Amino acid sequence: MNFSRQLHQLKKKLPGEIFLQPATLAKYAGDKWFAVHQPDAVALPRSAQSVSKILRFASQHKIPVTPRGAGHGYVGGCVPMHGGIALSTERMGKILEINAKDFVAVVQPAVNTAEFQARVERQKLFYPPDPASRANNSLGGNIATNAGGPRCLKYGVTRDYVLGLEVVLTNGDIVKLGGRTHKNKTGFDLHRLFVGSEGLLGVITGATLKLIPLPPFRANLAVGFSSMSAAVRALQSIFAAGFLPCAAELADEFTLAAAAKRTKSKRLLGCKAHLIVELDGQENSVRPEIAAVEKIVRKQKPLFVERGFGAEQCEAVWQIRREFSYALRDTGLTKLNEDVVVPRGKLEALFKFAAQLQKKHGLQLACFGHAGDGNIHTNVMVDYTQPGAKARSKKCLDDLFSWVIASGGSITGEHGIGLAKKRWWPQAVSPESRELHRVVKAALDPHGILNPGKFV
Amino acid sequence: MNFSRQLHQLKKKLPGEIFLQPATLAKYAGDKWFAVHQPDAVALPRSAQSVSKILRFASQHKIPVTPRGAGHGYVGGCVPMHGGIALSTERMGKILEINAKDFVAVVQPAVNTAEFQARVERQKLFYPPDPASRANNSLGGNIATNAGGPRCLKYGVTRDYVLGLEVVLTNGDIVKLGGRTHKNKTGFDLHRLFVGSEGLLGVITGATLKLIPLPPFRANLAVGFSSMSAAVRALQSIFAAGFLPCAAELADEFTLAAAAKRTKSKRLLGCKAHLIVELDGQENSVRPEIAAVEKIVRKQKPLFVERGFGAEQCEAVWQIRREFSYALRDTGLTKLNEDVVVPRGKLEALFKFAAQLQKKHGLQLACFGHAGDGNIHTNVMVDYTQPGAKARSKKCLDDLFSWVIASGGSITGEHGIGLAKKRWWPQAVSPESRELHRVVKAALDPHGILNPGKFV
Repeated sequence: MNFSRQLHQLKKKLPGEIFLQPATLAKYAGDKWFAVHQPDAVALPRSAQSVSKILRFASQHKIPVTPRGAGHGYVGGCVPMHGGIALSTERMGKILEINAKDFVAVVQPAVNTAEFQARVERQKLFYPPDPASRANNSLGGNIATNAGGPRCLKYGVTRDYVLGLEVVLTNGDIVKLGGRTHKNKTGFDLHRLFVGSEGLLGVITGATLKLIPLPPFRANLAVGFSSMSAAVRALQSIFAAGFLPCAAELADEFTLAAAAKRTKSKRLLGCKAHLIVELDGQENSVRPEIAAVEKIVRKQKPLFVERGFGAEQCEAVWQIRREFSYALRDTGLTKLNEDVVVPRGKLEALFKFAAQLQKKHGLQLACFGHAGDGNIHTNVMVDYTQPGAKARSKKCLDDLFSWVIASGGSITGEHGIGLAKKRWWPQAVSPESRELHRVVKAALDPHGILNPGKFV
Repeated sequence: MNFSRQLHQLKKKLPGEIFLQPATLAKYAGDKWFAVHQPDAVALPRSAQSVSKILRFASQHKIPVTPRGAGHGYVGGCVPMHGGIALSTERMGKILEINAKDFVAVVQPAVNTAEFQARVERQKLFYPPDPASRANNSLGGNIATNAGGPRCLKYGVTRDYVLGLEVVLTNGDIVKLGGRTHKNKTGFDLHRLFVGSEGLLGVITGATLKLIPLPPFRANLAVGFSSMSAAVRALQSIFAAGFLPCAAELADEFTLAAAAKRTKSKRLLGCKAHLIVELDGQENSVRPEIAAVEKIVRKQKPLFVERGFGAEQCEAVWQIRREFSYALRDTGLTKLNEDVVVPRGKLEALFKFAAQLQKKHGLQLACFGHAGDGNIHTNVMVDYTQPGAKARSKKCLDDLFSWVIASGGSITGEHGIGLAKKRWWPQAVSPESRELHRVVKAALDPHGILNPGKFV
């Protein structure tokens, strides 16, 4: 479809908010995934009112609108597959309120996640959701994708911190949903229907977020093991002792070998599994608790135990975790990062299955991630210059997702479906549930203009 | 409408699952609120398949169906206002699975909440949502109303523990939504749309619930104050010190006077506010933490501090809290229990406003509840034998809700809208949001057969 005439018309209606230059269009064609598709226009609205005008106009002329946050998604969720308008809320980036008595913040969608966290922490408040890429994320994007992160184990995901939303619907309605109280049973939980809806149901133009008291102290352990079974047993024993750590992250042999190469760390050499466990709370509690966790962990005869006390030392331990990602990049292979989730009891089985896949398909797999949640980033490492590598990686992913689904798992824990997981969507979700998705989508977006070409 | 012929037909189709006897109809006419309306039939299906048949038949013949849990709601949510079928899932009461490795349970809707909690706790697992009436509740009812309770402060409400649902839609589809992993970003968050939907969108026939490790120890304080301001300051200081207690409950002067009369407790006499704070976790942490909290509380010069260590002593402290309800009943007055919520910073203002309302309307108000969440049960105590009492209580409630809404609060934190709050629904929720409720309702229940006569 060519919407050129209408888009010029819209540009006149909204001076300085609609852009048609090819260079601009190219900038809004994708995210961190590989797929790109150019929009016909880029909308950078300054207000919910402008978003409303754009959506009403687009509905009238059946022009696709693909909303986007900071463009740091990992599944191509904001690729404007059918062209039309790429709508970014990047100009709406104000923190409107941080209220230390009500324990809420009111924000516009483009507020940077990491900066927001730093701001609230200065007031001894805490916004827990911590996606790894938060330095480059916006809160609006985190809400649209229901972003997670290591701390979700104890604190829950983005959804759990969204008390209220301002959303613009395709009919142009600017709707305020939810509220600013920590508890609310007024009507349906509609605001949370938009959380994680990947831009398919409406455009988020504002949010009221729940804050909690900032735990005054943190401590963590980084533990190397000679086997994955030992690491998993250690984790299970921590839960069995009644601990719910704020984070519990595991990495496998392949990841560790790459990390050892990059960091020249002798400790990681020969290490078959690496567990980070973090606790937070009052200092006088956390210190003996982390000692108790260490005692539990030591029963599995670890190769080493490193301790971090306080924010600075804890961050140093997390820096190792971040090196894992860089180390995999260093391999020069293409990393197909699949954020699968298995029921917690199937954790070891997932690592074992990944090892089988390596052999079967002649590809390397690097697994690390949020073990406490069963949410392991399973990275299929591909050398696309090798003959047949692409076909083998495709089969490997098919095998992986089939196994995850058969094991009662989920095909995505954090990243969403987007384009990357669309292939497995029909397998993961029953026909009745997909039909219900269509019914809800059709009710909220009757002309199907919002983010078309995705999973619904 | 008279559905007599069709209901006899349905009874034949589902032998032993449809009841038309007047005595049975009378039993399913209401809940714990005062309103009642008789259904034309009672359905006690044994399976999701039967629920499916009933809903498909009802859709075809446009017969109202009002689903119900254990019938212990406080807002008339399950009163079959338009007659038709009262559908209770009470025969579907099996715990299908408690899995200590995956930290999930799979249940049918009629499982008793308190029994379920006791069962999982025996395996050192924890299902936190704790509505006061849980001994008489079913998990299905808790899910349909998104039940809360004191522990929600730290642990969240029922919604936060629902990983997956089996729901029967009005078209007869049996849909499995969500899953059994603790993290899941597959598609829209549709299962949670049904949580708290008060039987207006579908019938819940099964649930997969999240469990967490059982905290090994609990301790609490029950503190009497000479003023409400002192109690509120104490609570704010606890949060400011980085504590997120598992519960923080406040009661006001009127409640305490009634409780003093009932319990003959000399301590409660002259007490203007009463705060219960509970912490849980590892024993070696909780003991020093509760001592630290006591130190904070003592800065407000309390009249007394009682301590509870361990489950048994903690329960004794909670027994005092339960006496508050009984004591209000002892007054012989009718208690209009409104579970309003204010932003946490407006807590003291709510108690002050309630005191003003007492004077203005010549009615007594008893306020107590989940102070940590700002969710205070504001009980307007009415003697209906007094002339004009009914009209005054109505005006008093109008004033209360107007003030709560103007203060950024919510008209219901736990009980839901049902019939009791329907009067204030249009005031509390914007026209655009109400329209969105109608759009979602129409999409899922095109013939409007589910629980008609309620807020949508």
